Amino acid sequence: MILTLRPGTTQEGIQEVIKKIKELGFTPHVSTGKERTVIGVIGENAILHREVFEAMFIVEAVTPISKPYKLVSRDFKKEDTVIKVGKVEIGGNNFVVLAGPCAIENREQLYQTAVAVRKAGGKVLRGGAFKPRTSPYSFQGLGGEGLKYLAEVGKELDMPTVTEAMDPRQVELVSQYADIIQVGARNMQNFDLLKELGRSKKPVLLKRGMSAKIEEFLMSAEYILSQGNYNVILCERGIRTFEEATRFTLDLSAVPLVKEFSHLPIVVDPSHGTGRRNLIAPMSGAALAAGSHGLMIEVHPKPESALSDGFQSLNFDEFTEMMSSIQVVAKVLGRRM
Amino acid sequence: MILTLRPGTTQEGIQEVIKKIKELGFTPHVSTGKERTVIGVIGENAILHREVFEAMFIVEAVTPISKPYKLVSRDFKKEDTVIKVGKVEIGGNNFVVLAGPCAIENREQLYQTAVAVRKAGGKVLRGGAFKPRTSPYSFQGLGGEGLKYLAEVGKELDMPTVTEAMDPRQVELVSQYADIIQVGARNMQNFDLLKELGRSKKPVLLKRGMSAKIEEFLMSAEYILSQGNYNVILCERGIRTFEEATRFTLDLSAVPLVKEFSHLPIVVDPSHGTGRRNLIAPMSGAALAAGSHGLMIEVHPKPESALSDGFQSLNFDEFTEMMSSIQVVAKVLGRRM
Amino acid sequence: MILTLRPGTTQEGIQEVIKKIKELGFTPHVSTGKERTVIGVIGENAILHREVFEAMFIVEAVTPISKPYKLVSRDFKKEDTVIKVGKVEIGGNNFVVLAGPCAIENREQLYQTAVAVRKAGGKVLRGGAFKPRTSPYSFQGLGGEGLKYLAEVGKELDMPTVTEAMDPRQVELVSQYADIIQVGARNMQNFDLLKELGRSKKPVLLKRGMSAKIEEFLMSAEYILSQGNYNVILCERGIRTFEEATRFTLDLSAVPLVKEFSHLPIVVDPSHGTGRRNLIAPMSGAALAAGSHGLMIEVHPKPESALSDGFQSLNFDEFTEMMSSIQVVAKVLGRRM
Amino acid sequence: MILTLRPGTTQEGIQEVIKKIKELGFTPHVSTGKERTVIGVIGENAILHREVFEAMFIVEAVTPISKPYKLVSRDFKKEDTVIKVGKVEIGGNNFVVLAGPCAIENREQLYQTAVAVRKAGGKVLRGGAFKPRTSPYSFQGLGGEGLKYLAEVGKELDMPTVTEAMDPRQVELVSQYADIIQVGARNMQNFDLLKELGRSKKPVLLKRGMSAKIEEFLMSAEYILSQGNYNVILCERGIRTFEEATRFTLDLSAVPLVKEFSHLPIVVDPSHGTGRRNLIAPMSGAALAAGSHGLMIEVHPKPESALSDGFQSLNFDEFTEMMSSIQVVAKVLGRRM
Repeated sequence: MILTLRPGTTQEGIQEVIKKIKELGFTPHVSTGKERTVIGVIGENAILHREVFEAMFIVEAVTPISKPYKLVSRDFKKEDTVIKVGKVEIGGNNFVVLAGPCAIENREQLYQTAVAVRKAGGKVLRGGAFKPRTSPYSFQGLGGEGLKYLAEVGKELDMPTVTEAMDPRQVELVSQYADIIQVGARNMQNFDLLKELGRSKKPVLLKRGMSAKIEEFLMSAEYILSQGNYNVILCERGIRTFEEATRFTLDLSAVPLVKEFSHLPIVVDPSHGTGRRNLIAPMSGAALAAGSHGLMIEVHPKPESALSDGFQSLNFDEFTEMMSSIQVVAKVLGRRM
Repeated sequence: MILTLRPGTTQEGIQEVIKKIKELGFTPHVSTGKERTVIGVIGENAILHREVFEAMFIVEAVTPISKPYKLVSRDFKKEDTVIKVGKVEIGGNNFVVLAGPCAIENREQLYQTAVAVRKAGGKVLRGGAFKPRTSPYSFQGLGGEGLKYLAEVGKELDMPTVTEAMDPRQVELVSQYADIIQVGARNMQNFDLLKELGRSKKPVLLKRGMSAKIEEFLMSAEYILSQGNYNVILCERGIRTFEEATRFTLDLSAVPLVKEFSHLPIVVDPSHGTGRRNLIAPMSGAALAAGSHGLMIEVHPKPESALSDGFQSLNFDEFTEMMSSIQVVAKVLGRRM
Repeated sequence: MILTLRPGTTQEGIQEVIKKIKELGFTPHVSTGKERTVIGVIGENAILHREVFEAMFIVEAVTPISKPYKLVSRDFKKEDTVIKVGKVEIGGNNFVVLAGPCAIENREQLYQTAVAVRKAGGKVLRGGAFKPRTSPYSFQGLGGEGLKYLAEVGKELDMPTVTEAMDPRQVELVSQYADIIQVGARNMQNFDLLKELGRSKKPVLLKRGMSAKIEEFLMSAEYILSQGNYNVILCERGIRTFEEATRFTLDLSAVPLVKEFSHLPIVVDPSHGTGRRNLIAPMSGAALAAGSHGLMIEVHPKPESALSDGFQSLNFDEFTEMMSSIQVVAKVLGRRM
Repeated sequence: MILTLRPGTTQEGIQEVIKKIKELGFTPHVSTGKERTVIGVIGENAILHREVFEAMFIVEAVTPISKPYKLVSRDFKKEDTVIKVGKVEIGGNNFVVLAGPCAIENREQLYQTAVAVRKAGGKVLRGGAFKPRTSPYSFQGLGGEGLKYLAEVGKELDMPTVTEAMDPRQVELVSQYADIIQVGARNMQNFDLLKELGRSKKPVLLKRGMSAKIEEFLMSAEYILSQGNYNVILCERGIRTFEEATRFTLDLSAVPLVKEFSHLPIVVDPSHGTGRRNLIAPMSGAALAAGSHGLMIEVHPKPESALSDGFQSLNFDEFTEMMSSIQVVAKVLGRRM
């Protein structure tokens, strides 16, 4: 961490800062320029004390020189993390498609969708039982009943499953039924939920918050790892910008960046990320080419009568078509699907 | 709700849409232009079914004509809601300052701050016991012990108190100690927490999410009201933008807008909203002039050694000075402080 | 265009709006709901008068039902526009790479780069002579001398060239030397420049402004077409968001969207769009897979001593490697390179 | 400027960086930590060479320690700049209101408005002759004829005038008629226009670009000052964010921040900044309380039939009412109006 002092700071002021640095157990390294004095604070995790220095009037700026996350970083672990869920492997050279309905509406809808997804090459079955909805008057999901359907259908078709938990109190229940627990974008900084999931051993699919910087995204993953659960799959799902033609702006640059900074796998959700059905296929191809470890796609037997997010769901034919064009590109890029 | 159909839609297509509208119990109103056909969907809460229509290929756009919230709207209740907490009234013509340390560090720190706040004209004591922190390695708050200090000091000085609950499981505990329960920006769409608070009767201070549109902000308040708790105070605390010179961009336009759309009181938090100590006084004055019902300010005996957010806290002298300049303006504007 | 009136509007108010609509030569179409009255304004280009109605107090909202652009729209021209520059075709099924140094520093640097670009499969030579720089103290480009080098090198190697004009007074000069004139992101709404280019017949490469919505981007192209110049190539180059890990957020969704709305070709600039050298290759692949008509890439003999934007330039080896992996994907997607 | 090197950088790498620093005439200051080496680059304007270092692979991050602008900074000039235009002074303790129609439609409209503005206390007359419009089909202003009306009315009523120049070729003409030349938000980084204005001696009112960081805003002012024209008035007019309820998000924090960083005066435009007529009065009060040096307000005899931006214009009564409430607050704050 580097402290830049204001111009005109006196020798006394500099001494006070140095004293504080030593008090905290770090080593100061002073560098005096023509206009400004700069002090390096040397020592492990010095950055965790940045607020102490930001609050000092004579400190004009505090600049971190190391990343605030540890366990999720490439520095901590060089090789890619590969997470096994049943027979499916997520991470490394694998390209995995997780697909299914946004919300589970009934057993039949889920079953039909799962059959179509599996046939087209989808490996993991997704389906929402607890739904975070902006309006209290919208369909909130089937809850426990939905979880039961998901477990049954997943078992019958031998597909691992993923579904969302919104409340720390749901973690235990969801763990009994699903193979991967999803954290939605709105809960990316629900720290009590993250801690609860960190104490579980289930794989977690953590979605990026709609206004989260990549660093904050990785910090939220760090919450889970720091409690002992290393099985975290990241998911880029679009950020909020001024553009109104899409529901969110899918930030595909996040894929190569996250792969540079972290060993954790990252998948992309073009359904929520764009909110427009006809953008899903091109953006899925783009995600693959950008280096993503997989896709999360909404599929519905009849999108136009879906109880949730039908506008951004593919029907079975559209999904099958998208999958075959993806497979061609995956093959030429040497990715395992 | 208005449906704009794609150019070239056939009579059959139009009939299909009309059929669907009637099925849902609404009245269609067709208007045929040169290029496009437009259909009005008339009936209460038609907008709640917007997804059904968005999923239809021939529907190019769905345009709401009424707001998606009900109980929080000015249409529902014309006069300002005034919330009484002890002897303090929030809303209407009152201008109330809620102040105290970001995090409660110990009893002494809280007590000293409370005395200074009250002396300068602050009416409600704030102090964090459970702290949402981006990093799992940062100070997470004193928890239950902090709550006890808060209740004791509030009682001793006869000041109502406000503190944050982050987890639905904390609501009961926090309710026993505090007079107002705060929902932090990161939890604005933690819907299980909102529902839990809706079932409590305690006043809630709901902070705007850092990427929440005003409509979404009001929808989150609607979650609480829809469960039966009408005592909601809104709080503008800055939104996330590209600007880096401030921590967030304080959106003061939200104040007159929320007052136009809703009967609920709205206060402003310039401490988090700017993240810079020297902006707190000017932006507090601006919030008052924009019509805010109050301010939420971080005060600390020694900001430079604060365990949390010292950079954006005022010391006692700075707070006192700010309060006296605010009082002068409040008086000339006819606001009761 | 649809006008939604405020609740409680009287019959007189409605009549006044109707009168205004007729005055402007349009046909009103009134639809009376329980809470609100809605009036359709039928007639060509009604939306151009939206401000008249927005200014009326009783009009709560004005909703366009047709796009504000005409000549650039797919409605106006169904098939893709293909622009010929020398022997190079841009648009349709072609995938064209435009590459070269950000700024022309001297003849030798430009020549060496052009040779490397051509050898690796780049078709159009880019190079800046007039440079828009945030700081008045940064290198501003070689100006006319740079233009001369560009024309010479392009001719010698038989490559069409592209360079930026920043000022309407430069259009004539730049036209004499370059084959395509670039409009930079900061000038996307420099309407006098756009008009000047519209009166020229030279192909224009129009970059998206860093805070431009896709609709505004297309409106700026409309300025050029409306003056008679139909040879416009669009370029997505990243938008400004809260994310700081990249210089801008490359909005690849813009590619399929623009192709849906418009017949004009669109290329992607991952150099400026990400600002990080190691993101250029993955985002180039992603742009191709998203359906882009080409790429605009910065290449420099020695990026670490570039006078402008070295941080985001590829050296010759990196460019060559990127091109070969792009070619493999282009082939399997059936794109002509 | 501080360079943070990548972990694992060798002694040779460090020596190479040091060599480069010395070549450029600066002094290196090396500080070796456990994980990383950090090098301070000491010397005037070192930051202008940041790109040289950003392009080096072993340099992980470049951190400026001084501001990139000079002439506009408080360091360069401690006391507030006060700009005299006729008898009007802008800056320092003065609070000046510039008002008038968005676009000049005819002499009568301008004259009536000017009379109303002056009577209510407005000091400078604004009116657009050249209008930057998103659509080529919208009213583009009266041009030279409008300028003549502006000059005549200003002279008759003894009010200084302000109007926009969009094109460097207009600067000379506009200078002959108006007292202050405005640069619109879309042209904030039209560097040729800025340079042209820098060579003129006329006061310039520079509007903040809708996606410009405060630092970039000040850099654009630096362009003008660096050419010798020190008479620059800054204008905050809203930035582009995800919020849709207002046209832009008025960033009032920019006011105290700009006053901290620069000696130049800054005024606020709540008409464009909010795009909603009923927000103008509250946000004007807020701008004053935040420390603004003035306001720029759109006034129109009959906003509902304005040819441009009627939705955000006040009529005469609204303006007069707003002015009297502003005057009360200005008085109590000790500001001269």
